[in-house]
Amino acid sequence: MDTDILEKTYVVGIDIGGQTTKMGIVDTRGQVLSQTVIRTDTYDDVSLYVEEVAAALEKIIRESESEGKIRGIGVGAPNGNYYTGNIENAVNLSWGGQKTIPFAELLSQKTGGLKVALTNDANAAAVGEMTYGAARGMKNFIMITLGTGVGSGIVVNGEVVYGHDGFAGELGHTCAVRHNGRVCNCGKTGCLETYCSATGVARTAREWLDMSDEPSVLRSLDNITSKDVYEAAKDGDRMALKIFEFTGKILGECFADFVAFSAPEAIVLFGGLARAKEYLYEPIMTAMNANLLHMWRNKIKIVFSQLKESDAAILGASALAWEL
Amino acid sequence: MDTDILEKTYVVGIDIGGQTTKMGIVDTRGQVLSQTVIRTDTYDDVSLYVEEVAAALEKIIRESESEGKIRGIGVGAPNGNYYTGNIENAVNLSWGGQKTIPFAELLSQKTGGLKVALTNDANAAAVGEMTYGAARGMKNFIMITLGTGVGSGIVVNGEVVYGHDGFAGELGHTCAVRHNGRVCNCGKTGCLETYCSATGVARTAREWLDMSDEPSVLRSLDNITSKDVYEAAKDGDRMALKIFEFTGKILGECFADFVAFSAPEAIVLFGGLARAKEYLYEPIMTAMNANLLHMWRNKIKIVFSQLKESDAAILGASALAWEL
Repeated sequence: MDTDILEKTYVVGIDIGGQTTKMGIVDTRGQVLSQTVIRTDTYDDVSLYVEEVAAALEKIIRESESEGKIRGIGVGAPNGNYYTGNIENAVNLSWGGQKTIPFAELLSQKTGGLKVALTNDANAAAVGEMTYGAARGMKNFIMITLGTGVGSGIVVNGEVVYGHDGFAGELGHTCAVRHNGRVCNCGKTGCLETYCSATGVARTAREWLDMSDEPSVLRSLDNITSKDVYEAAKDGDRMALKIFEFTGKILGECFADFVAFSAPEAIVLFGGLARAKEYLYEPIMTAMNANLLHMWRNKIKIVFSQLKESDAAILGASALAWEL
Repeated sequence: MDTDILEKTYVVGIDIGGQTTKMGIVDTRGQVLSQTVIRTDTYDDVSLYVEEVAAALEKIIRESESEGKIRGIGVGAPNGNYYTGNIENAVNLSWGGQKTIPFAELLSQKTGGLKVALTNDANAAAVGEMTYGAARGMKNFIMITLGTGVGSGIVVNGEVVYGHDGFAGELGHTCAVRHNGRVCNCGKTGCLETYCSATGVARTAREWLDMSDEPSVLRSLDNITSKDVYEAAKDGDRMALKIFEFTGKILGECFADFVAFSAPEAIVLFGGLARAKEYLYEPIMTAMNANLLHMWRNKIKIVFSQLKESDAAILGASALAWEL
């Protein structure tokens, strides 16, 4: 009987990106029953945006016949603060900017009082991986998202680390290169994400092409992306292969320091760039083990996300709601 | 009545160092009622050592009239594993070496079944500071011990981070200098503790004296210690002052990365070198803030331990026992 009740409970996952917002209805097994997408960037005013989100939700709740069975809503959003439910100074959102938006409260009001949990996208991804994915059963791991930037979600003793202010886990902005490091969007230099994000990989390609005469299929391209570098590596292009070696080495060096902090069972990689795992895994492992204290050498796993990429953002956000 | 019962409960704190072992009886207010010291390094066999510890304890329990009122024993020991109660591969202990010693179990047997909690010294210091010292009321902070080495204890959400294996928080062995860094006792290079421990400061002094002709009172000394550098700084010696600036800068740079991990309210400094706070505070703050993401700039406190140094080790270890 208990199982019956559990199986008939659902959660909503909402992933807010700069351009689009994905949302879906998820069951206890991590199946997405129904999903939809709306634009994020056509709204200047958050009230109108929240109304549109609520309307879209109503539709997929009806479609999935889950009326009255929704346990809560989980939201992954840039600069989302778990403690307050606010989205703070999210300059990448057209309705965000230099202000504090009580997003969880607004959404709860528009959805008949459903409970809403909110955090940033990387923390949501960590909870998703722990609930449905590669980190099931793990109580200590670090999620690293390798996308346009480098995000992170840190899990200690089965719980996401939010820190004093709700914003812990900004490992993409730890220092990878101390002297003459690349300038980061955040205003600092040498940040991990300037080297090891999708944009960082493209930047490495452009720098190396400028600095050498080495032949490479990448030379013929106008606007190099990390996907181009990946395709070139698959075709055996030497420079492309070396770019992934360089990227993996920096990741591994930084991972060793992360391990010294929280002694995780594993580091879980997710995001577009993590697709290049056949080129990243070995250099990451080699550099990480070379920089670990003896007691951790060859003991820390590097694993790749097991969530279907099209569902991952929704699943991650939805997993937060099970904890409400 | 409840207060009465509480005030009549005591805990034992034991701090195991390579040379000596300090132990004391502590009340709920952090007063050390009675304490004693025995040698650690005259025993090759852990059984004999544990018997000696138990005998010394019996004596101070009698002295403080706390028979039958001991709630438990907390132990701070190198390579102490909180999860298992074992001391693992502690090469600095004459009876430690390449083996796993079930220390908590052994001590419990010899003390009539008292409960024993064990962790490493830096974690014990963090619990002590949270219970009796500068971190009272804080739920998120990082303890950094600046002694012969650099140790750390990380507190997240009111609990020490032990990680998957019990050994989390080795921030002294994160990388401070990536290229041509100093060789560390751990076998790696560039570790924070090769620069910012007491021995690291002395090493900086020797290096700088070798590399330049700059006049300094330190030139006249045979075997420079960090204390010599501190005394010279107090006398206005320019090189000594610059050594602390250099040390504080490296600490601040590394602290910025630690903040990106766990977003602590404060970083608490403890240990012999922390006595040089008048020379370390400003350079730490400047370098930390220059390397923090904007949202954390000027918001993270650097505070110094408030525990009396002669009692601190015992207090830290004893605080563990309140949680038993």
